[in-house]
Amino acid sequence: MKNVVVIGIGLIGGSMVKDLKKLRPEIKIIGVDANEAHITAALNSGLIDETGDLAVVADADVVILSIPVDASVKLLPEILDLIADDTLVIDVGSTKQDICKAVEHHPNRRNYLAAHPIAGTEFSGPQAAINDLFKQKTNIICDVEKTAFKLQERALSLFSDLGMRIRYMNPESHDKHIAYVSHLSHISSFMLGKTVIEKERNERDIFDMAGSGFASTVRLAKSSPEMWTPIFKQNKTNVVETLNEYINNLNQFKNLLESDDFEAIFDEMKNTNRIKDILKGIA
Amino acid sequence: MKNVVVIGIGLIGGSMVKDLKKLRPEIKIIGVDANEAHITAALNSGLIDETGDLAVVADADVVILSIPVDASVKLLPEILDLIADDTLVIDVGSTKQDICKAVEHHPNRRNYLAAHPIAGTEFSGPQAAINDLFKQKTNIICDVEKTAFKLQERALSLFSDLGMRIRYMNPESHDKHIAYVSHLSHISSFMLGKTVIEKERNERDIFDMAGSGFASTVRLAKSSPEMWTPIFKQNKTNVVETLNEYINNLNQFKNLLESDDFEAIFDEMKNTNRIKDILKGIA
Repeated sequence: MKNVVVIGIGLIGGSMVKDLKKLRPEIKIIGVDANEAHITAALNSGLIDETGDLAVVADADVVILSIPVDASVKLLPEILDLIADDTLVIDVGSTKQDICKAVEHHPNRRNYLAAHPIAGTEFSGPQAAINDLFKQKTNIICDVEKTAFKLQERALSLFSDLGMRIRYMNPESHDKHIAYVSHLSHISSFMLGKTVIEKERNERDIFDMAGSGFASTVRLAKSSPEMWTPIFKQNKTNVVETLNEYINNLNQFKNLLESDDFEAIFDEMKNTNRIKDILKGIA
Repeated sequence: MKNVVVIGIGLIGGSMVKDLKKLRPEIKIIGVDANEAHITAALNSGLIDETGDLAVVADADVVILSIPVDASVKLLPEILDLIADDTLVIDVGSTKQDICKAVEHHPNRRNYLAAHPIAGTEFSGPQAAINDLFKQKTNIICDVEKTAFKLQERALSLFSDLGMRIRYMNPESHDKHIAYVSHLSHISSFMLGKTVIEKERNERDIFDMAGSGFASTVRLAKSSPEMWTPIFKQNKTNVVETLNEYINNLNQFKNLLESDDFEAIFDEMKNTNRIKDILKGIA
């Protein structure tokens, strides 16, 4: 591996090449980004060695595609048109169905690997890139059998260097499950933030009363709308389903409150406490 | 200050006396707790020096009442019956209206100070007690004018030792505002945990896909039902109101999704991003 192209030098793409550069200093990192300020920042901080236009993928051993998921769906076929025979293209987006569908009949489909590293922070842009973001994190690979075996090996070696645990899944299951453990919690957090901000308009200084529990619960409401709007768009059906279930559970809890059934409220919380065991090792 | 009695040696009461003991080693800490295992653990770890029954409050300079809020409402009048003329009794519960009402006509009302330190973790019991839990945290004092001036001073000196910032509020405003920034986020977290756990029954290994964002959003679902059921009971009216607003916001977001209005979804998130500035200094 000599040339790595990263398209979209933000939190995920940026953190990946940051680790790669540290682990394999001989690799040349070429950054492509529609945002000039990102390019400048990434060059200045040494996150990338060079920049260029999309044509640079022709000489790449690995292309990391880390841009919003709607842009990825459009750009991936173009990238596959431009690459060399043994270029590996990895996308790291949070939805997998639309992108896999977009290239299913592309003659270079075997050069592409669909991945979703479950890692990140609520920050974005090249300045959000950090070392070791992927250590011990789960990386979901979809439709692995559609990628050329030699390129699968190259990808796995790269992911192994970053310290990731691999799980295999089809794109449909990925999008369905990730709606529960990621997309829904972003919406619950955004709407919690909204509810309290709306209240604050009338009740000044309400946030003086907020503690670390509130901060933890609304942390994801800091996330980038540029990144999350296309995710919700692509995964609309699954996200609406999780929202229905979540809203039902909230309504049911409210009904228990209104009917003074505090035994049932106690049981609801007691049953959900088992999240303690479930979360061990994630936080 | 020579004798401090702590009734309920859990996260809050335990952390308070842990700091106090460090700051003023000459103070004797007497622990009262219905749970024998808590007493034993607190004696063994040196969190308290002695134990006793409720009568020990008669010799106390300060009594810290840190038990579930329903038990506090019952016990506080009995404590005020037993104390000496210049004993200060502080309760640290998460609701303030019912407890202030319970003692408003008590002859020793002036010995009582209603407080709510906005501090904590999702853990409970004496083993959850930690040093410096209250440093830089907000402590809300209600109806301060109803406490004897000399005892106000004693309380403020104690809170100042623990490093807390003080805010004054009436019990009605406290309960109304805290519903938004604390009680609602506990319910949103519990119901998020419930929704995902229910899904997992049919879809094994879904939690392998959970990342730190999910963990942060459901952290409060680890909280103690013993403590939280009576809080929701006492603050039912306010909590139901916050739940209505939260559910409305979630339904509205869902409607935007279903009608493909992704511009509005983008704006919703962008507007809520200002939680970043609001949270500065809390997390």
